Amino acid sequence: MFKKEIRVIGIDDAPFDKFKRGKVLVLATIFRGGSWLDGVLSTKVNVDGTDSTRKLIEMINKCKFKPQLQCIMLDGIALGGFNVIDIRELNKKTRIPVIVIIRQYPDFKKIKNALKKLKKEERFKLIEKAGQVHKVGKIYVQLAGINLEKAKNILKITCTRSLIPEPIRTAHLIASGVVNGESKGGA
Amino acid sequence: MFKKEIRVIGIDDAPFDKFKRGKVLVLATIFRGGSWLDGVLSTKVNVDGTDSTRKLIEMINKCKFKPQLQCIMLDGIALGGFNVIDIRELNKKTRIPVIVIIRQYPDFKKIKNALKKLKKEERFKLIEKAGQVHKVGKIYVQLAGINLEKAKNILKITCTRSLIPEPIRTAHLIASGVVNGESKGGA
Repeated sequence: MFKKEIRVIGIDDAPFDKFKRGKVLVLATIFRGGSWLDGVLSTKVNVDGTDSTRKLIEMINKCKFKPQLQCIMLDGIALGGFNVIDIRELNKKTRIPVIVIIRQYPDFKKIKNALKKLKKEERFKLIEKAGQVHKVGKIYVQLAGINLEKAKNILKITCTRSLIPEPIRTAHLIASGVVNGESKGGA
Repeated sequence: MFKKEIRVIGIDDAPFDKFKRGKVLVLATIFRGGSWLDGVLSTKVNVDGTDSTRKLIEMINKCKFKPQLQCIMLDGIALGGFNVIDIRELNKKTRIPVIVIIRQYPDFKKIKNALKKLKKEERFKLIEKAGQVHKVGKIYVQLAGINLEKAKNILKITCTRSLIPEPIRTAHLIASGVVNGESKGGA
């Protein structure tokens, strides 16, 4: 279905202090399939803010790799804590399919309660809007602009080293290495 | 001679404003051979300062990958402008062989003159101390704690994608992507 050389952008945020206001570094890797790192992008979003969707759209649409990109992969549906990404909007404004990678089945009740406490309950709508959580092997995904069969095909191509697709694993390694001085596993 | 899975650390600095004093981000990638990124480290050194050797020794000796590392690769002999690295000292204090990757044959006269103007002429001694510049294919290398034959073997394993070894190419992509928002080729 997709070529082994498919260009995928993988996005993750760096570690940050959740008790401080401020910005968090967001790292993106552009991969050719599951093996070759072609480029690195970065931006910043507000911790617990609302700018993640806009910032990702800007970063992706202006980058030189844009014409080749066939998939956006996110490490979870939020950056910098509760800066929830509107994946339908991200898909619409970039015209690129979006796959949210989720390691453990999300505890929606817990998330809803946390958002309630923060008086940001309306953000739960973005999580609901992201649609069904599908199990693929040992991980879970949410999809925008792509069907499950095609998403599985991309995961097969990009999960060359672990359960987590290489673009996400690498974005995580870079983000934690830059901010902490040494990367931590777990991706 | 070396296994294909040899662990190599590749080091490069990020873009910086050479007309300002301050610190420059230094990125290191830990590779397994020429294909797999295992980790990312970072530190900072002073632009045109003298702390690069000490900072690299600290970064490498305290990292969890240390016991596996079999080679340190540097993208040129200096970081942050004229913060020249003493590669013999780096080799001695880490007990890991060092390969300096040089894209173009260095214009030693020009470097010496530039250092003279900056009244940092004594740093040229570190460049001389780094020893002979060897041509390997289309690039050049300087070596500490390793002979040319072994260095060629490591280059063969790690130059999987371009003339430049993957640990150095990737460190460069990350460093420029983090600082400029988008990585630029060339390295």
